[in-house]
Amino acid sequence: MLSFESDYIEGAHPAILEALEKTNFEPLPGYGTDAISLSAKARIREACAAPNAEVFLLSGGTSANQIVISSMLRQEEGVIAASTGHVSVHEAGAIEYTGHKVLTLPSHEGKLSSEEVRAFLSAFFADANNEHMVFPGMVYISFPTELGTLYSRDELFGLSAVCREFGLPLYIDGARLAYGLESAACDLTLPELAHLADVFYIGGTKCGALIGEAVVFTHGNAPRHFVTLIKQRGALLAKGRLTGVQFDVLFTDGLYFRLGRHAIEMAGKLRALLLEKGCRLYIDSPTNQQFVIMPNGQIKKLRESVAFSFWDRFDDENSIVRFCTSWATKPESIDELAKLL
Amino acid sequence: MLSFESDYIEGAHPAILEALEKTNFEPLPGYGTDAISLSAKARIREACAAPNAEVFLLSGGTSANQIVISSMLRQEEGVIAASTGHVSVHEAGAIEYTGHKVLTLPSHEGKLSSEEVRAFLSAFFADANNEHMVFPGMVYISFPTELGTLYSRDELFGLSAVCREFGLPLYIDGARLAYGLESAACDLTLPELAHLADVFYIGGTKCGALIGEAVVFTHGNAPRHFVTLIKQRGALLAKGRLTGVQFDVLFTDGLYFRLGRHAIEMAGKLRALLLEKGCRLYIDSPTNQQFVIMPNGQIKKLRESVAFSFWDRFDDENSIVRFCTSWATKPESIDELAKLL
Amino acid sequence: MLSFESDYIEGAHPAILEALEKTNFEPLPGYGTDAISLSAKARIREACAAPNAEVFLLSGGTSANQIVISSMLRQEEGVIAASTGHVSVHEAGAIEYTGHKVLTLPSHEGKLSSEEVRAFLSAFFADANNEHMVFPGMVYISFPTELGTLYSRDELFGLSAVCREFGLPLYIDGARLAYGLESAACDLTLPELAHLADVFYIGGTKCGALIGEAVVFTHGNAPRHFVTLIKQRGALLAKGRLTGVQFDVLFTDGLYFRLGRHAIEMAGKLRALLLEKGCRLYIDSPTNQQFVIMPNGQIKKLRESVAFSFWDRFDDENSIVRFCTSWATKPESIDELAKLL
Amino acid sequence: MLSFESDYIEGAHPAILEALEKTNFEPLPGYGTDAISLSAKARIREACAAPNAEVFLLSGGTSANQIVISSMLRQEEGVIAASTGHVSVHEAGAIEYTGHKVLTLPSHEGKLSSEEVRAFLSAFFADANNEHMVFPGMVYISFPTELGTLYSRDELFGLSAVCREFGLPLYIDGARLAYGLESAACDLTLPELAHLADVFYIGGTKCGALIGEAVVFTHGNAPRHFVTLIKQRGALLAKGRLTGVQFDVLFTDGLYFRLGRHAIEMAGKLRALLLEKGCRLYIDSPTNQQFVIMPNGQIKKLRESVAFSFWDRFDDENSIVRFCTSWATKPESIDELAKLL
Repeated sequence: MLSFESDYIEGAHPAILEALEKTNFEPLPGYGTDAISLSAKARIREACAAPNAEVFLLSGGTSANQIVISSMLRQEEGVIAASTGHVSVHEAGAIEYTGHKVLTLPSHEGKLSSEEVRAFLSAFFADANNEHMVFPGMVYISFPTELGTLYSRDELFGLSAVCREFGLPLYIDGARLAYGLESAACDLTLPELAHLADVFYIGGTKCGALIGEAVVFTHGNAPRHFVTLIKQRGALLAKGRLTGVQFDVLFTDGLYFRLGRHAIEMAGKLRALLLEKGCRLYIDSPTNQQFVIMPNGQIKKLRESVAFSFWDRFDDENSIVRFCTSWATKPESIDELAKLL
Repeated sequence: MLSFESDYIEGAHPAILEALEKTNFEPLPGYGTDAISLSAKARIREACAAPNAEVFLLSGGTSANQIVISSMLRQEEGVIAASTGHVSVHEAGAIEYTGHKVLTLPSHEGKLSSEEVRAFLSAFFADANNEHMVFPGMVYISFPTELGTLYSRDELFGLSAVCREFGLPLYIDGARLAYGLESAACDLTLPELAHLADVFYIGGTKCGALIGEAVVFTHGNAPRHFVTLIKQRGALLAKGRLTGVQFDVLFTDGLYFRLGRHAIEMAGKLRALLLEKGCRLYIDSPTNQQFVIMPNGQIKKLRESVAFSFWDRFDDENSIVRFCTSWATKPESIDELAKLL
Repeated sequence: MLSFESDYIEGAHPAILEALEKTNFEPLPGYGTDAISLSAKARIREACAAPNAEVFLLSGGTSANQIVISSMLRQEEGVIAASTGHVSVHEAGAIEYTGHKVLTLPSHEGKLSSEEVRAFLSAFFADANNEHMVFPGMVYISFPTELGTLYSRDELFGLSAVCREFGLPLYIDGARLAYGLESAACDLTLPELAHLADVFYIGGTKCGALIGEAVVFTHGNAPRHFVTLIKQRGALLAKGRLTGVQFDVLFTDGLYFRLGRHAIEMAGKLRALLLEKGCRLYIDSPTNQQFVIMPNGQIKKLRESVAFSFWDRFDDENSIVRFCTSWATKPESIDELAKLL
Repeated sequence: MLSFESDYIEGAHPAILEALEKTNFEPLPGYGTDAISLSAKARIREACAAPNAEVFLLSGGTSANQIVISSMLRQEEGVIAASTGHVSVHEAGAIEYTGHKVLTLPSHEGKLSSEEVRAFLSAFFADANNEHMVFPGMVYISFPTELGTLYSRDELFGLSAVCREFGLPLYIDGARLAYGLESAACDLTLPELAHLADVFYIGGTKCGALIGEAVVFTHGNAPRHFVTLIKQRGALLAKGRLTGVQFDVLFTDGLYFRLGRHAIEMAGKLRALLLEKGCRLYIDSPTNQQFVIMPNGQIKKLRESVAFSFWDRFDDENSIVRFCTSWATKPESIDELAKLL
């Protein structure tokens, strides 16, 4: 069946499967210490133009968020996030599970406002009773956001400046980073993003890998004994080669970026089609997720032949639904969708 | 280089890679709800002769132990394990991280004695002051153990009976289950083991898969909302297909067991070689891990051409080292080792 | 100095000190098993007209909230609270420390709306993706609220009905319960409140005791091994007599209620004075906390001779401040305040 | 009834009750910021000859252990304790509840051997695989121990030296500190102990107070935002005056030490009586706890007229029982016991 359900409905880019096969019988040590994982990390450092970065390969986005946030926060601290942030609403309380509060601020189409963050931090640190409250200890954003939007270069500079002003690390969830960086609306490069963030992760699972997210501590600032902290949270893979091989391939000859570009092209085509067919967009997303307000009747009918996601209730007659493209989307699929809309 | 370092130095059995490739572009829903994962689970239930079993595919052994133990224990409870148990010594405190104590009892070549477990439980529940202590809430064993040994059918019956007498679930860590079940010393079948345990996991990572462990709640006894509990611990894979495909292949036509048998044959050959060369075995292991007491000088020299694991100090002149075989060990590798010993 | 800073600025009611002295050399067993503690619990059950209630004496409000909430919630669950709820903002993340999220809903002068709670729960349980979210598992309210307001009998019936409809326990934080029950605006009795709640606590620290809060599980529904859960959280007092004696005195001859009545009378006098002096009330509080919007200049000057609390910024020129009465407030103190305002 | 059950069967020293009464109506700010608490802390610093010490007043021993250990350890660390240590066996898993393992070493009559601690630490840090293990991060001892024994000055110097060699803080649980310091067998002063430890607590509950333990960070090394960490664990008392007044009295004119001396004198008298009556001591305790091996029949009979504690099974016919003296023990009580033995 035709599917635009998410960006993780297919397996991996063929070059990845090929590399897994080619290296399959090489005996490699475990836990990410193998030569291929080291090569992947070196390539990522290079792509980020961050020679002092420390890179760790984890298996999924919630895992990466949970490990990074819980290992960087002090016990009395919580993490600031937009009210729509993934860590706030869609991770089953994984942050709270580690003992920390998610401190939510208003979401502006998925984004935090640096002014509001500054105001919040100023007020908090000025409050004489703050000893009875959770201390803000980190700022979490996603790029692209959960709603497909992007921070502009200026906006990210603003947030980064506020964070540095108050001594809080800025953490960027890049589950769909390839689709953000390759959007026409993006005025940032990966090295710039790495420069503005203290830690971020490069999403693999949604951008061409079978599994894997590369956490980058941008300036040699990984928590001490970070491998042990990963193990303690149950997330250290014995066969580190699995993620090592994949990121090594993704960061060879710019494959990661090419995959991003393809998804963005497909999203452009999809968006044009949706508008052409008179669909009403819920949000103006320049990335691979397109949100549409659709009559419930049409949704029901369309579902018979296409898979896509229910996002939220809009009003009594309409719902918000999501169509995703990815590195694997074929132009023919969009043509086929055209016939059904 | 020749390597007997562990049972996770190679990738996956070729049939697995092939299946990953074949299904690569099938659009599948995420989080383990896809048809291939469902098929894998059905095959596992069948292999266990446990039609009411609930099966969940996780990514690694520590993760499986952490999730199963923390989700089944009540807050006031801890888990009983042998002092050599993996959860007690080699998981970086992953169990304590979730708030629970590991209650250790003596290790008899890696195994718990059912008599000692009974005595401990009797004494605990008879103690009027036990309100100030951690309540024992589960028994954890590994099969094979961390030292390569196996519980006999009678021993496992004994432990299972004690657990049922006191109402505690019995949990079996089967990271190397294939190598236990296929050992000549094993007088148990998988259905028997499934019948005696309340929950166990079938190790994939060390037995032919790239990643993956299949947790089996043997009689419909999975904790409520178990998928949410997995997510909360950061361990829910978006592309459930990755583990689904692998276990589907492993449990088709008995591949899992054939892989176990091969490793056991190779271990027999290895053991014969070690004895022939006058090596002193540290423990009498009937499975794929062979432990040897070796002079430190010999270790140093041998390491130049073979990889193997340091296990523990033995005395001033000797150490205990470990040689592992696996599903991927080639007979030629052992022949080559013969020349070096 | 004259002080209206809080309701915990004095020690204990003299009858309590007297009882501590009288019983001081009686040798009593520890941990709340002594005869005086048992007597106190029996008196509380009687005052609540809840013969099957289980009563536990704890030392403070945050401790009571943390223990009750974390021991009653399942792991995948969070607690619903108003955004102004004490557990949400003023307990330094004590709930999250135990692994649980506080799910906030709008605060209506400190109160939850039962309609909004119902709508939230309906939407949550109807959402097919709720497996990736924190499950609501309890409703927390305070009576009186942090803003001094009270739920009416009807409002509490409404909330209790929603909770029972969805199978969630209703928990009432009664840090200032005496001051709520004795307010002229209160149309509820303690037995009615006990009947509507599944668990609540009777505040001692702010209502005449040196220390102590009595947690009441209203219908024999205390979590199993609750004493061990208290101990595990570090909160089991060795000398249980300390809280036992105090609650025994407070619930003898209705002292607790008389203390409440006194504070309410003093609050009435204080409120009349504030209005007479032209002060602008921030909220219409019928209990012992009175919130006033005051020019910053006046605050500064008044502080030279009276202690009171800064509550929040109001605008550039004014702040919200709080004046508290308590069981110990003397009429003369209000007369004195009259001269200063 | 005559009772030697524990050292917390009575209330508080009369001077404490008197001070509570005298200060009862002084309006004081909350949370330990009042002048009396500050005075108590100053007196403690002086008694410890530790002018840079930071002192915090908590309510109980398990609470103090839980807060100190969990706030000083890094996430990947556990605390070393003797297998008989209170934190290991009698605190219902309060340390594990905060995510940390208790790493047990052999108990030598309740004490750790500094040689064994050094050997353990050396082996741990030399192990190349220690990334998969819990890092030792602190050493916990009790003084006196749970068995009434004392570290000699030399032994404590030894432990302190090992801790400093490896950079681990040394923490001393002084639940019964008065009874240790005043023992004839003690060759240490409080300032010396404060000098050797990085953090310790001065027990109040068992040494004359109604409630309260004074945690002393000996050299300005309290964790940042420690008050918030206390609040987060539910343990910040609103009426800090309650513990403030008590420690202020205990550390005025050496009362704390006098109370200790009295209990030791009574213990000497008790011990002489026990030996005179032919009782067999289980351990040679120079402090206020005396352990006796007693035939089960005699225990049963004696219990009709005296309260004392069952400690442990000794053999089929005998048990180990404990008799405690305290600051409140009357000589007449021992004379009375003489008639019953």
